[in-house]
Amino acid sequence: MATKKQARILDGKAIAQTIRTEVKDEVAALVQRKVTPGLAVVLVGDNPASQVYIRMKRKACAEAGIESFEHRLEESTTERKLLNLVDKLNQDPKVHGILVQLPLPDHIAEDRILTAISPEKDVDGFHPVNMGRLLAGTGGLRPCTPYGCQELLRRSGYKVEGKHVVVVGRSNIVGKPLAAMLMQKAEGANATVTVCHSRTKKMTSLTQQADILVAAMGQAGFVKSRMVREGAIVLDVGISRVDDPAAAKGYRLVGDVDFASVSKKAKAITPVPGGIGPMTVAMLLKNTVKAATPQS
Amino acid sequence: MATKKQARILDGKAIAQTIRTEVKDEVAALVQRKVTPGLAVVLVGDNPASQVYIRMKRKACAEAGIESFEHRLEESTTERKLLNLVDKLNQDPKVHGILVQLPLPDHIAEDRILTAISPEKDVDGFHPVNMGRLLAGTGGLRPCTPYGCQELLRRSGYKVEGKHVVVVGRSNIVGKPLAAMLMQKAEGANATVTVCHSRTKKMTSLTQQADILVAAMGQAGFVKSRMVREGAIVLDVGISRVDDPAAAKGYRLVGDVDFASVSKKAKAITPVPGGIGPMTVAMLLKNTVKAATPQS
Repeated sequence: MATKKQARILDGKAIAQTIRTEVKDEVAALVQRKVTPGLAVVLVGDNPASQVYIRMKRKACAEAGIESFEHRLEESTTERKLLNLVDKLNQDPKVHGILVQLPLPDHIAEDRILTAISPEKDVDGFHPVNMGRLLAGTGGLRPCTPYGCQELLRRSGYKVEGKHVVVVGRSNIVGKPLAAMLMQKAEGANATVTVCHSRTKKMTSLTQQADILVAAMGQAGFVKSRMVREGAIVLDVGISRVDDPAAAKGYRLVGDVDFASVSKKAKAITPVPGGIGPMTVAMLLKNTVKAATPQS
Repeated sequence: MATKKQARILDGKAIAQTIRTEVKDEVAALVQRKVTPGLAVVLVGDNPASQVYIRMKRKACAEAGIESFEHRLEESTTERKLLNLVDKLNQDPKVHGILVQLPLPDHIAEDRILTAISPEKDVDGFHPVNMGRLLAGTGGLRPCTPYGCQELLRRSGYKVEGKHVVVVGRSNIVGKPLAAMLMQKAEGANATVTVCHSRTKKMTSLTQQADILVAAMGQAGFVKSRMVREGAIVLDVGISRVDDPAAAKGYRLVGDVDFASVSKKAKAITPVPGGIGPMTVAMLLKNTVKAATPQS
């Protein structure tokens, strides 16, 4: 072929929209059974990015018919006060999912808050019980971003089974749970998984082996073309602002992958924005419906 | 060098003995503080291997000054009855650690039993909360065999940091928790980790890249010399009986590694028996002491 190659763009926004439509139907069915799924969203302080995320999540809830309850606490809120709120929400029968927006102020122990959320209402999937079930392969609620990665691959027609997945980055919200999820002996998993990070030597020789490469280290444009194998599938989980005087807002959003060059070598790639981001929100809705569905 | 190479044999038995002596001192210090560490050991049915393991563990407890309480239930015991016993042990102040010997009979849901054990008394480290803390890197009690692998490497003077660890096998008691443990940003970890298993393609090309290769798939002699990189460190977690008319008992114990050939290529290797096995028992004692130590 003489034509220049260009990777298939994995349209996370469109796939997320499909999921959100499905969720809407599921919510309608629950409402018929007199259950209106409810999500409590807790924001401590006024981090601008967190406010944007929360607005987006609440809008998505509203569209799907999920009730959302916003709780705003001051930056100076004590850990005790936040724990009390979480406890109240744990007891509240109208609340099926609880989301405490991260990051929390430094004086509050994140680990203690996440552990206080009832595992059954932990729609972010960060409670140790849910992380443990993920690692053991015994169910539970799954963290939204890794879950979104898995679902995006599945709905794009890419099997993970037997593939070598290389995850770059080992955060608790993406890298580690995604690795745990994809190594399971389970549908949509069964991958050989490698986790790379800041201490990895010979990073390039490892990323070059990936059938599926997941960039989740939070460094704008870190993954260059030479790090990617010809024909690989590349998921870009990163999202950073970079200054761009030409852009209307003075900045643009970029991922952890150098899209311009990698999209000429990969078989398929997620864009930023419009890739994994929207999937994360869709999976939050899916988790909320799961949490609201009565166990029969 | 014209001399035939031979790997350093990592003497798990000797290292475990050192740890057991340390534990003995720690127990003596606790007894001074009026705390005698206690381990409850629960056996359901009369699996011969389980009986051997339990006898070994109780003997190790006795030598270290840890009190052990054995609870034997019939093979036909109901799940309810076992849950009641676990609950009683959870409440018992003389019991700091609870070990339910696996495997359990088919009519009992293993997952339900392991989840019923109080995470603070879960000295096997199999409770979802402890598995989740392991994955998140937030403390908790660690599964004994992976913990033993880590400790064996550390006490043998091998740094894991920056090394490529390839784990073959993804069981809940070894492969998955070991991978989770070694990928952490933490002392004794910080490794690049790859997990291979039955669905892995190009297994050999992956194992050949390992600086540290861990064989834990439960297949006697699976890892051959050609799968191992010259100078690698090889941990053999497997243990199987193979018939051997020449042996006094009519069988001998072998690991997942073909020791005869691999020991000529590796830099260091654990034997079977006398490698990881004794380390597992030592770490059980260490976990029991940790569980018995009052939080100050």
